[in-house]
Amino acid sequence: MKKLINDPADVVRDFLAGFAAAHPKTHRVDAERRLVLRSKMQEGKVGVVSGGGSGHEPLHAGFVGPGMLDAAVCGEVFTSPVPDQIQAATEAADTGAGVLHIVKNYTGDVMNFDMAAELAEDTRAESVIVADDVAVEDSSFTAGRRGVGGTVFVERLAGAAAAEGRDLDGVLAVARKAAESCRSMGVALTSGTLPAHGKPSFQLGEDELELGVGIHGEPGRSREPMAPAGQIARKLTEPVLAELSSGEPVIAMLNGMGSTPLSELYLMYGEVAKLLGEHDVEVARVLVGDYITSLDMAGCSLTLMPADEDLLRLWDSPVDTPSLRWGA
Amino acid sequence: MKKLINDPADVVRDFLAGFAAAHPKTHRVDAERRLVLRSKMQEGKVGVVSGGGSGHEPLHAGFVGPGMLDAAVCGEVFTSPVPDQIQAATEAADTGAGVLHIVKNYTGDVMNFDMAAELAEDTRAESVIVADDVAVEDSSFTAGRRGVGGTVFVERLAGAAAAEGRDLDGVLAVARKAAESCRSMGVALTSGTLPAHGKPSFQLGEDELELGVGIHGEPGRSREPMAPAGQIARKLTEPVLAELSSGEPVIAMLNGMGSTPLSELYLMYGEVAKLLGEHDVEVARVLVGDYITSLDMAGCSLTLMPADEDLLRLWDSPVDTPSLRWGA
Repeated sequence: MKKLINDPADVVRDFLAGFAAAHPKTHRVDAERRLVLRSKMQEGKVGVVSGGGSGHEPLHAGFVGPGMLDAAVCGEVFTSPVPDQIQAATEAADTGAGVLHIVKNYTGDVMNFDMAAELAEDTRAESVIVADDVAVEDSSFTAGRRGVGGTVFVERLAGAAAAEGRDLDGVLAVARKAAESCRSMGVALTSGTLPAHGKPSFQLGEDELELGVGIHGEPGRSREPMAPAGQIARKLTEPVLAELSSGEPVIAMLNGMGSTPLSELYLMYGEVAKLLGEHDVEVARVLVGDYITSLDMAGCSLTLMPADEDLLRLWDSPVDTPSLRWGA
Repeated sequence: MKKLINDPADVVRDFLAGFAAAHPKTHRVDAERRLVLRSKMQEGKVGVVSGGGSGHEPLHAGFVGPGMLDAAVCGEVFTSPVPDQIQAATEAADTGAGVLHIVKNYTGDVMNFDMAAELAEDTRAESVIVADDVAVEDSSFTAGRRGVGGTVFVERLAGAAAAEGRDLDGVLAVARKAAESCRSMGVALTSGTLPAHGKPSFQLGEDELELGVGIHGEPGRSREPMAPAGQIARKLTEPVLAELSSGEPVIAMLNGMGSTPLSELYLMYGEVAKLLGEHDVEVARVLVGDYITSLDMAGCSLTLMPADEDLLRLWDSPVDTPSLRWGA
């Protein structure tokens, strides 16, 4: 294993130290609790908190900022944060209007966010579970579907709704609508390598891919021979399209898993766009890049979300985070 | 080799098709000439054009937009674009105020941009050569120093100067000041893999790194045993610091070479920030992420540029490109 790290036991701590050094004015890092917080919370705004195991950066820390998250809770690599951490983030993000928890559907995360909501007695905390991965029902760390790329959409849209002053019920409604609408599927060409293990977490042959892989390297639908990008794009796009619940224009994300060059992600998006055209699906907005990764996995995922006018307007509202940023 | 591509011969064409599909309103792709252009040039503004071999994305295509480039010329992977392509970009970007060429210091690029400037007879074209890599003098594709991460800085600052209405001499002066001030050094843990070859372009042992590597995998200063991030950071930071020409606050970029996780890039930045503190170097602005890559190389590079008030103000002015974006 070759990684740009010091002691593998300290990767999350050291990542956060670097994050703090890079964003000293806009962000505050609670090193002990492993939290990334906006340096100043906005009084009276609903707090939006997410988190989970580390190793998926920029998710979640890179999405802390105006128009998205108020706090990100960082677990160890591929490990749910503990309730105490989440409680501290929840309390820090509560300025009187309550807090929304955005939780990816993994058993540990769901349980620990629930416990944290109970521990934060003086805060009204609601939660939305993201379970957008169409690849498999149940999996290594999940009952039901896994939460993957759709989390980025829910964080953005709930963050936008909170920023424009909606109350907790209103923010929760947006988050639920987004979570219920988004659908994703991924593919791995290689496994990521956990710092603590030093070895790929699964093995793929030189001519194999894992279709429907999870963001922790969980098995997908099938192991298949490598294929041209156009064929792989079809195997991602059609299952996702089959699960969309409306014919509204979609927000599309072609997401890199960590070590796939941006040029290949664009190339894959081009193939996906052709297929969407064939299916008469209108694309309203597009993201191409690394948004939710799996360490240094090679591969990508596709997320589609039908969006009504309200969601599109929220999507377009200003966002200013290290890893997602645009103006009005 | 496993890549998300179709025919290896078509990777640049297919990347551009995807880019066009992802950014239909803001960008125009000339598929024949392999150009990425702003969909609308701004009349009377100095045109800012860059380009080079593909494989370094987001550089240059991802930096086309208001406040940065007007056109990017895409060569084949790791291959200079030809004069006809550059000429077409130059003419497209000329709205009467002339054009600045930003050229990385590789023999083919310098020659072909020069020829293009001559071919574009009706355009006043000036050029700035970026040669910021302190690792080696002369190299596989270069006489003198290689142009690497500093190119991102020159593109941003020249683009900002053009956007605020400076004339060609003024934009050129900013570009030259930036190019003369920035210094970089990189490190590779693995080689990238060229689509056409299907194999890593160089071999590193399981416990080796290449210190001072070029963005095409050119040899660096030395091949050394793997080391903790703190030690690697020192081997990048000290040679760069030794070459800075002023004690002004610096703009710092900790850049990923393609397949290094963002968390490791932040971790490395944290180590660099400690060293800058030890040397009493004030950091004014920071970028952490993949800005100039080498396909799927694992590793990173550090760029530092002392910046006076004018450069900092230009840096902070609005920029709206797919891969670098912030508001005023």
